[in-house]
Amino acid sequence: MSRMTFPVLLLMFCAASPSSAFDYFQPLPAQALVPPDNPITAAKVKLGKTLFFDPRLSADTTHSCNSCHNLSLGADDGRALSSGPKGVTRRSAPMLWNIGLQTVLYWDGRAPNLEAQFIDHLADPLILGQSDPDVVGKRIGAIAGYRPLFTSAFPDSKFSLSQQMARAVASFLRTLMTPDSRFDQFIRGDKGKLNSEQRQGMELFRQVGCLACHFGVNFAGPAPGPVMDMGDGFYELFPNHKGTRFDQPLALLADLGVYHVSKDPADKRLWRVPPLRNIALSAPYFHNGSAASLDQAIRVMAVTQLQKELNDREVAAIQAFLHSLTGVRPNIELPYLPQ
Amino acid sequence: MSRMTFPVLLLMFCAASPSSAFDYFQPLPAQALVPPDNPITAAKVKLGKTLFFDPRLSADTTHSCNSCHNLSLGADDGRALSSGPKGVTRRSAPMLWNIGLQTVLYWDGRAPNLEAQFIDHLADPLILGQSDPDVVGKRIGAIAGYRPLFTSAFPDSKFSLSQQMARAVASFLRTLMTPDSRFDQFIRGDKGKLNSEQRQGMELFRQVGCLACHFGVNFAGPAPGPVMDMGDGFYELFPNHKGTRFDQPLALLADLGVYHVSKDPADKRLWRVPPLRNIALSAPYFHNGSAASLDQAIRVMAVTQLQKELNDREVAAIQAFLHSLTGVRPNIELPYLPQ
Repeated sequence: MSRMTFPVLLLMFCAASPSSAFDYFQPLPAQALVPPDNPITAAKVKLGKTLFFDPRLSADTTHSCNSCHNLSLGADDGRALSSGPKGVTRRSAPMLWNIGLQTVLYWDGRAPNLEAQFIDHLADPLILGQSDPDVVGKRIGAIAGYRPLFTSAFPDSKFSLSQQMARAVASFLRTLMTPDSRFDQFIRGDKGKLNSEQRQGMELFRQVGCLACHFGVNFAGPAPGPVMDMGDGFYELFPNHKGTRFDQPLALLADLGVYHVSKDPADKRLWRVPPLRNIALSAPYFHNGSAASLDQAIRVMAVTQLQKELNDREVAAIQAFLHSLTGVRPNIELPYLPQ
Repeated sequence: MSRMTFPVLLLMFCAASPSSAFDYFQPLPAQALVPPDNPITAAKVKLGKTLFFDPRLSADTTHSCNSCHNLSLGADDGRALSSGPKGVTRRSAPMLWNIGLQTVLYWDGRAPNLEAQFIDHLADPLILGQSDPDVVGKRIGAIAGYRPLFTSAFPDSKFSLSQQMARAVASFLRTLMTPDSRFDQFIRGDKGKLNSEQRQGMELFRQVGCLACHFGVNFAGPAPGPVMDMGDGFYELFPNHKGTRFDQPLALLADLGVYHVSKDPADKRLWRVPPLRNIALSAPYFHNGSAASLDQAIRVMAVTQLQKELNDREVAAIQAFLHSLTGVRPNIELPYLPQ
């Protein structure tokens, strides 16, 4: 996987011929990115959805994926840090809507795809209380009612049970798209879908510089294309400017982001640019959940990333624009879990 | 509320004219019991379902009703004791399917209806981490997106917010019926719906004496009618016979049941008779979850309640019969929670 930041990208942008990968405002695609070696099938989605809601994925059967990525809420848990089986997690649970548009996963981008991220979750004691994905695979595989679901999803699979689980859950997650936000209707041509404050906010979002990082299909950087492959991440420093009034109260210097993975000093405080679609549903904000509200997050970002102080009217307009990024969530029928 | 046990009931049964309240095997009614002062409406059910899935009901926003009464599982959590915000609960979470047929709630029957039980839950620190229902009512009432749901469910309500919540959640719970079990189809006349082992199990269930307590619409005693009102409970000693080999390993004498509520020594080890519909979905069993499997629970009950040792064939037949009590669970669409 390669790591890309804004200055690198700018060079490539200037060098490249115009490409839809670099359109700043882009509508939501009809489908998520699907890796060629794990095509989506109805059987995989059904198994993946069932597993997603199953608390038996955690060692003490208290936590399912839905516990922290609650699909009734913003597909996160509305908390700064999540409450796992062994106490709170290290970082704030990100929302899952349109997660299938991301090219890397985790705040530090350490997983190149949803399949790898799921296996990593099974191996993280702070998330599900255990450290061996194969133990989880055996536990779930021992539930007789699951066998037809596995057989149907992977009729002649050479993958281990935990790998089958990963491929199924990743397939389900790729269905969690939220089309038809007011923003999407607007850029498809229905100009009445954004009111004047939202249009002002959209313009401010560009002028102030938010769009420099938060662009593309998921407002999180370039989609895979000429210069980005799946597994390539798009990163930025946060805070980009140290020493602001927010460093201490929001503990912005406490977590060094990508550095914890790479151990490269140049990666200190480097973070994957998070998506902004449905952002109004997922307070609190940032990797540590330190910003309680969207208007606070906007203010902080302007100062720490762009050294700009926004006035109340500007914050309100950008916030109104961000609210237009909330799409239509799918109807999800609760699965009944195998016995 | 009055408390009824088997000997009392037997006297009344002998004295009373035949009544459907005393039919031993009864089909599932089309509807739950609905108190006259809280009729079910679509708006209440919608609000109640939304609240049921909302983790903001708990002080630390980690637990919704669905955390312990997981509708994807047996409407319980598959655990002996539940994992609450402050550690494990005192007793095992009962399943909720057909809960609207119960005349009293809790293992010790301390709540006369679902509305009272909900308020009691809000006031129990071990369940939702808090002790003041009105604080919860204010917290939920402060979520702007909930206001239209409350107004629609209670247009001119004189009830407090927590009381409105109780009435709405109770209404939703009363919709959780599971019709068309094989047993129900059988007693409606489709005799092929129980196989020969299940029919033997049904007859054994009667002969051995299980039916003495586990009869009626929910296999938990008499339905409201000539001798039972809503709020009247049907209780039995458990263990009825002390000194068996199960007392110690299953800790059957550790919890004194109704006595903890009444402080009447005659109520020591008295328990509300639990329903058996969908029992195959809700392992482990008993108030303390000490029986891991249904066959173990059957064996224990025969010994502790009826002083009978069942052989393997008898246990298997009764177990097969109990599996026929699993009904068809409703399709439940996941609610999106108000912001």
